[in-house]
Amino acid sequence: MGIRVAVAGASGYAGGELLRLLAGHPEFDLVAATAHSRAGQPVAGVHPQLTGLDLVLGATEPAALADADLIFLALPHGQSAALAAALPDDAMVVDLGADHRLRDANAWARYYGGAHAGAWTYGLPELPGGRDEIAAARRVASTGCYAVATTLALAPLIAAGAVRPDDVVVVAASGTSGAGRAAKVHLLGSEVMGDLSPYKVGAHQHVPEIKQATGATGLSFTPVLAPMPRGILATVTAVPTGDADPRAVLAAAYADAPFVHLLPKGAWPHTAATAGSNSCHLQATVDVDSGRVIVVSAVDNLGKGAAGQAVQNANLMVGLPETTGLSVYGVSP
Amino acid sequence: MGIRVAVAGASGYAGGELLRLLAGHPEFDLVAATAHSRAGQPVAGVHPQLTGLDLVLGATEPAALADADLIFLALPHGQSAALAAALPDDAMVVDLGADHRLRDANAWARYYGGAHAGAWTYGLPELPGGRDEIAAARRVASTGCYAVATTLALAPLIAAGAVRPDDVVVVAASGTSGAGRAAKVHLLGSEVMGDLSPYKVGAHQHVPEIKQATGATGLSFTPVLAPMPRGILATVTAVPTGDADPRAVLAAAYADAPFVHLLPKGAWPHTAATAGSNSCHLQATVDVDSGRVIVVSAVDNLGKGAAGQAVQNANLMVGLPETTGLSVYGVSP
Amino acid sequence: MGIRVAVAGASGYAGGELLRLLAGHPEFDLVAATAHSRAGQPVAGVHPQLTGLDLVLGATEPAALADADLIFLALPHGQSAALAAALPDDAMVVDLGADHRLRDANAWARYYGGAHAGAWTYGLPELPGGRDEIAAARRVASTGCYAVATTLALAPLIAAGAVRPDDVVVVAASGTSGAGRAAKVHLLGSEVMGDLSPYKVGAHQHVPEIKQATGATGLSFTPVLAPMPRGILATVTAVPTGDADPRAVLAAAYADAPFVHLLPKGAWPHTAATAGSNSCHLQATVDVDSGRVIVVSAVDNLGKGAAGQAVQNANLMVGLPETTGLSVYGVSP
Amino acid sequence: MGIRVAVAGASGYAGGELLRLLAGHPEFDLVAATAHSRAGQPVAGVHPQLTGLDLVLGATEPAALADADLIFLALPHGQSAALAAALPDDAMVVDLGADHRLRDANAWARYYGGAHAGAWTYGLPELPGGRDEIAAARRVASTGCYAVATTLALAPLIAAGAVRPDDVVVVAASGTSGAGRAAKVHLLGSEVMGDLSPYKVGAHQHVPEIKQATGATGLSFTPVLAPMPRGILATVTAVPTGDADPRAVLAAAYADAPFVHLLPKGAWPHTAATAGSNSCHLQATVDVDSGRVIVVSAVDNLGKGAAGQAVQNANLMVGLPETTGLSVYGVSP
Repeated sequence: MGIRVAVAGASGYAGGELLRLLAGHPEFDLVAATAHSRAGQPVAGVHPQLTGLDLVLGATEPAALADADLIFLALPHGQSAALAAALPDDAMVVDLGADHRLRDANAWARYYGGAHAGAWTYGLPELPGGRDEIAAARRVASTGCYAVATTLALAPLIAAGAVRPDDVVVVAASGTSGAGRAAKVHLLGSEVMGDLSPYKVGAHQHVPEIKQATGATGLSFTPVLAPMPRGILATVTAVPTGDADPRAVLAAAYADAPFVHLLPKGAWPHTAATAGSNSCHLQATVDVDSGRVIVVSAVDNLGKGAAGQAVQNANLMVGLPETTGLSVYGVSP
Repeated sequence: MGIRVAVAGASGYAGGELLRLLAGHPEFDLVAATAHSRAGQPVAGVHPQLTGLDLVLGATEPAALADADLIFLALPHGQSAALAAALPDDAMVVDLGADHRLRDANAWARYYGGAHAGAWTYGLPELPGGRDEIAAARRVASTGCYAVATTLALAPLIAAGAVRPDDVVVVAASGTSGAGRAAKVHLLGSEVMGDLSPYKVGAHQHVPEIKQATGATGLSFTPVLAPMPRGILATVTAVPTGDADPRAVLAAAYADAPFVHLLPKGAWPHTAATAGSNSCHLQATVDVDSGRVIVVSAVDNLGKGAAGQAVQNANLMVGLPETTGLSVYGVSP
Repeated sequence: MGIRVAVAGASGYAGGELLRLLAGHPEFDLVAATAHSRAGQPVAGVHPQLTGLDLVLGATEPAALADADLIFLALPHGQSAALAAALPDDAMVVDLGADHRLRDANAWARYYGGAHAGAWTYGLPELPGGRDEIAAARRVASTGCYAVATTLALAPLIAAGAVRPDDVVVVAASGTSGAGRAAKVHLLGSEVMGDLSPYKVGAHQHVPEIKQATGATGLSFTPVLAPMPRGILATVTAVPTGDADPRAVLAAAYADAPFVHLLPKGAWPHTAATAGSNSCHLQATVDVDSGRVIVVSAVDNLGKGAAGQAVQNANLMVGLPETTGLSVYGVSP
Repeated sequence: MGIRVAVAGASGYAGGELLRLLAGHPEFDLVAATAHSRAGQPVAGVHPQLTGLDLVLGATEPAALADADLIFLALPHGQSAALAAALPDDAMVVDLGADHRLRDANAWARYYGGAHAGAWTYGLPELPGGRDEIAAARRVASTGCYAVATTLALAPLIAAGAVRPDDVVVVAASGTSGAGRAAKVHLLGSEVMGDLSPYKVGAHQHVPEIKQATGATGLSFTPVLAPMPRGILATVTAVPTGDADPRAVLAAAYADAPFVHLLPKGAWPHTAATAGSNSCHLQATVDVDSGRVIVVSAVDNLGKGAAGQAVQNANLMVGLPETTGLSVYGVSP
C-alpha cells in the first residue's frame, strides 16, 4: 500500500507531466486529479499521452483531494493559496505555483499583486541544507522553472564568494510549454515555430525568486521564448572576485546531487539532453575577452523545472530516496 | 542479480534509446555496449541524454558481448547477420535490424541485396500467436518501424476478412530519427525543419516486410520524412469486403494488448502522444465519399518502432511480463 | 498610377501574406485593408513581418473597400458571400474563401451548411481554359489550398484518361497556418511541434471542391496537420488505365505554366522548396508493387494555396502577365 | 542591359539566398555561379527552391567569374582571400566571408589563424559614414551575421556615450543555417529540433569583429544554436553612463535607414518577423532591477546577416538605391 497522492490543477502541461510521473511512481498511489474546467472528463481526453490511465478528473475543491496523504498543487499563479488554506492540516502539500515562494511581501506585491500568502519551505533540495529542510516540512513551495535553471548555475558561486552578487546578467530561453496551455494567438504553432521571441524584458516576475534563491543583489534577467516544446537554457554571467575555478566550485557543490551534472570540460549543456528527465546539466568557463564567468545550465522546464522537482520534494517529505520514480536520463532525440 | 544484457551498435538513435530503456529496466543488467567507430568513448559523450550512465563503449565484436545472457543488435541493415553467426549458441539475441525479418529470399535480394541470412521468429507480440512464438524463441527479428505502425493497423482487418488484401494504400510519415544518425546534407536541421519530403517513392524496402506481416497482396506504400525528431503516423486505407465495423475488429484483436490502444470514437492518433512510450494508438472509420476503410496508427519510431519493441520481445523471451521496464505513457508536450 | 486594390479580412495568415505580396507588387496600389476585430490598428501591430508598411486596418464593411478597383476577400468560410453582395458591381473581386467555389448546392449544404451563394469562375489558371475564363471574369473564386495541391497533381491524368477517376486516394499534410490564426489549444506550439495529427478523417469539406476541379468520382482524402508553419505535401494515388507515362501527361499539361514545375526524374517535391513562392512542384511514378500511379505535389499553402494564387488570378483579370509581383523561387532553408 | 554579377561559392545557404535575391533583382544580371564540389550541376539540383532558374554551376576559379562587373564571394572563411587576389582589378567584389573584415592582424591570427589578408571597406551601411565609404569602394567586406545583429543594437549607444564600452554582455541565438551546410552529426535535424545548444562559449571568433564595429572594449559574447532554420536574436546589455534614453539614441541613428526599424514601445523584436527580409528590428529598455540597458535585435542571418546585406552593399557600390531588389517585409508565418 503506497502513499496516497492527488493533483489539483491537472489539465495544464505541468499537471500532465506530474500525472505521468506519479502514474509510474513505485511508491505513490495516484488517487485523485482535478481540473477546474475539465472536471468529469477522463484524463486521457485531456492528455492523450496518458491514454491507458484510468482516471476521471474531479472538480478542484478540497473534498476531491481529502483522501490524499500528499497533495500537489499545479494551479495558475495566485490560485493555490486559497485552496491550500482549505486543505487538512495533516495533508502534506507541494505547491508548483509561485504563491508561497517569496519571503518578501513587497516583491510579491510588485510582481504578482494581491495579498501575499506567506512563504513555505523553498523546494530546491540542492541548496545548502535544502534536503533536510524539505524532509522536515509539511508545506513546500517548489521552484519556478527559470529559477531552478539559474539558481543551480549561480548560487554556489555567490555562496563561495567566487563571483560578485551585484552584477549578474542572465539570458534564459524556454520552450513554449513554459508559457502554459491557455489558447493565445502568440503561442500558436504558426507563430512560435521558426521564432525566437523575448518577453517581459526589463521586469520579469521571476527576478525576486532568483535573487532570493541565489543571493544575487543586482540581476538583469531576459527571458526568451524558443521554438521547442520543452527545455530551458540559461546563460548566466557574473564578475569573478578572484581566480577561483568556477568548475571546481560547482563540482564541490553538487558532488552528492544525483540530478545535477557538471559536464566534462569542453561539453556544454543543451536542452534536448535533459528532456523528460529530472536532471540539470551545467558547464562553466571564464570568458577570454571580458573576464566574466559564464555558466550555462539546461533543464527540462516541465521536469526539474516543475513536475520532476515537485516529485523530488515529495520523495524527501515522505522519507523516500529523492530519486524514486524519477529519471536521470533524458528522452532524446 | 538480473539478466545480463548487452547492446551491439549502441551509437545510433535506436541504440541510444535502447540504452535508456535498459538502464532503467528493473530486471536487466546492462553489462556491455559496443559501437564500431566510437569504441573507447563513454556513453554520455555519444548520447548526452545518458549523462550519469557510467559505461564505456567497446568494439563491436563477439568477445565484447560474450558475457551477456541476451544481446541486442542495433546495427545498420546488412551487418547483423555476420555478427549474429559468431555469437554463442546459448545467448539469446534480439536483432533490431532487417537481416532476419524476411522469409522470402527473393524479396531480400530485391530490396536489400547480398546473401539472405534466413528468417528468425518475427518479433511482433501482438500478431496472433506472437507472444508464444517469441517466448519460445532464442533468436528474434524485431520489427521495422514502418512495419509495426502499418501492421498493427491493418493485419487484424485482413485476417478477419474485413478488407481486401489486394488494394491497400499506405502513406506514412516518420520523424527524422528514423533516417539514422549518419551525417547527410538532406538530414541537416536546416533542410528538414519546415519540410515534408517523400522518399523512395514507388519502391520502399519495407514493402515486403509489411506484406509478410499483414497478409496484404497489393500494397502502395509512400514514406515521408517529417520535421520532428520522433514518431510515425501511418494512414492506411483499404477496400472493405462487407459491412464489418473496423473498430470492432481492432478492439477484439487488441483486447489483451497492453500497448495497443484503440482510441475512443472521434479521437484520432497523433504522434506526440506516443513519444517516449511503447504504445501504439489506433483509430478507424469508413470514408463517406470513397467507402474505403481508413485506419490511422501512431507510434514512436524509436519506441514501439524499434527499441521499446525489442525490449518487449526480450521480456517475453526471458519470461518476464511484457511490460517490464516499458512505459505505456508518452512524454508530451 | 497603378490599379487600386484592397483586402478584406487582412488579419489572418492568408491576409498577411496577401498584404506582403501586394505591398511589393509593381502594378497594384494597396489602398485599404480591413479586419473585423483589429480595426484601427496599424498593420504592423497585427503582422510584425510587415513593419514598415504604413497602413491602418479599417472595419470590414463595403465603404472601406469602395475606393478599390479590385478587392480581395480573405474572410472565414461563410462570410464572404454577404460582403461580396454589397460591393459595387464594377469592382473586380477575388474571393480566397470557399463561398463561391462549389457549383453543387447540395455539396455546399452538406459540408458547409447555410445558404449556397452560387459559384463564381473557379480561379485555377492552370486548368484547361482557366486563364481565359479568369481573364474574362469580374468575380473569381480562388482555390482552396488542399484543392490546388491535389488538382495540379491529378486533373491532367484524369482528363487524359490515364487513371481511373473512381478510386483516388489522397493523403495530404499541411503546415499549421492552414488551420488559421484563431487561438485554439490544439494549435498551440506546444501541441503541434513534434506532432503529426490527422483531422476530419473520412469527411473533409475540401472533398467536393477537389472532385469538381479534378473530375474524380471516388475520392478518399485524409488531411494531416504537420509541425511546420507553411506548406502542403499531397500524395495522390490512382489506378492507371493503361501504360500512359504519368510524367509525360503532366509535362504536356504544364508546358506553358510558369509556376508548375515537373521535377527531373528522381527528384521529389518537398514543401520547403516552395515556401514563400507561388510555385507547385510535381513528380510522378508507378508503384512497383501495387501498380498504382503515385503523384506527389508540394505548394506553399499561403502562396499557390491562397494569397499567391489570388494575386495570379488578379493579374489575369486586369490583363497583366500572370507572374507579375509573384516569385517562382522559394525562400529556403 | 543590367550590371553583370556572379557568385563564387553558390552551393551553401548564403550562396543560395544570394542567388534567389540576384535572380529577382531588377538591375543585376546573374551571369555565373560557381561551387567547388558541385560544378557541372544545375542550380536547382543543389537548391531545389530555385527550380526554374536555368543556370549550371561552374568551377570556382577566376576564369568562371571574369565576365562579371561585380562578384560576390560566399566561400568558407579563409578561402576568399586567395580567390580575390586573382580577380581582375576592375571587378567590384563583395566578400561575404570573414577574410577581409578585421583590421587587426593579431585578432585574425588568434581567432582564425593563417595569414591575414588585410582589411577591406567594412560593409555595414548603417554605421556613420558607411554608405559613402561603401559607395566609393571597389572591395567590400560584408558583415558577419552575429556582428550585424549586435552592432546595429549597440554601436549608436557607445558612439553617443550612452553606455560604457567596457562591460557589454551579449547572448545571441542563431538558426541552424548560420552553422552552414556541411554534413555534421550535431547539425542533423534529429539533434537540433527541440534543442538549444551553446557553442564556442568564452571565445567566439566573431568577438573581434563586433568590438571593431561597435567600439566595445570589453565584451562577453555567447552564441546559441536554436531549433529554427533562420534568424538571429541578439540580447545586448550594457551599463548606462547617465540618463540617456536608449530608444531616442537608436531612433536618431536610424532615422534614414530603410532596413532598420525601432519598434513601437512595448513591441519586442522576434526573428520570424524578419525572415526572408533585409530588415533589422530593434527595441530597448532599462532593466528595472539591474539598471542595465537591454537592447534586443532580430535579423534574418541569411538576409541582413549575409546575402541581403551583400546585395545592399553591391547596390551602393554601383550607385543604385540601397533597397533595390531587397524586401523590407518578412515572410511569416
